[in-house]
Amino acid sequence: MDINLKPIGTISSPYKVRENTPRQGRYSDKTSIIIIFDEFADGLEGLVINQHYIILYWQDRAERDELKVIPHGKTEKKGVFSTRAPVRPNPIGFCLVELLMIEGNHLTVRWLDALDGSPLLDIKPFWKELDSI
Amino acid sequence: MDINLKPIGTISSPYKVRENTPRQGRYSDKTSIIIIFDEFADGLEGLVINQHYIILYWQDRAERDELKVIPHGKTEKKGVFSTRAPVRPNPIGFCLVELLMIEGNHLTVRWLDALDGSPLLDIKPFWKELDSI
Repeated sequence: MDINLKPIGTISSPYKVRENTPRQGRYSDKTSIIIIFDEFADGLEGLVINQHYIILYWQDRAERDELKVIPHGKTEKKGVFSTRAPVRPNPIGFCLVELLMIEGNHLTVRWLDALDGSPLLDIKPFWKELDSI
Repeated sequence: MDINLKPIGTISSPYKVRENTPRQGRYSDKTSIIIIFDEFADGLEGLVINQHYIILYWQDRAERDELKVIPHGKTEKKGVFSTRAPVRPNPIGFCLVELLMIEGNHLTVRWLDALDGSPLLDIKPFWKELDSI
């Protein structure tokens, strides 16, 4: 079975190449702009500024054929499912972000680590009681 | 652009139909078993029992054509991106789970709310400093 995703928008970010991307978006205060395609804009109703959201995006420049990687700062290979490396069979990026501004279809956020031009897949509200330990 | 996902496993869960599924997996102590397909099993190396993981799965029985829904317990429609409803253009389910047991390719977890037979997309380790507020 193959599953087809349709991008719902695109991400405009300060990270143009992988080498300049923060190890995790949470460690940077740079902002990115999420641009929702017009046909999906109705789905934004109810988003609230200064709230936190889960962003799922497509890591379109990540390898998909490796099952083991050497994690950042380590020397031995580990299975990709025990790491946060973008390398994995389905490179779906996951970031918890803070929504700073909404201007029409443009959402300004911080903590996102996506490369510039990454396709957006989904936005979900973060619920502390569900999504934290 | 279309994006193709490949299921990396399947979820065996006590929830056979949507009506009997908990509103959120976190509110149930029932366990589910994640079965990783053999070809992806090498990616499991390094998973640790009693640790927490992010599970991404495909909500294969969810509608994809609606952009507004009435959230559980509410009376007015909201944009899907401000809700946790499975209805959305790319119905990727997201659950934080606790890993209880590993037996070969079988992972026993709690807090997962997936319907029985849902395709598994990804497993990522939960990092409290990145993934919490």
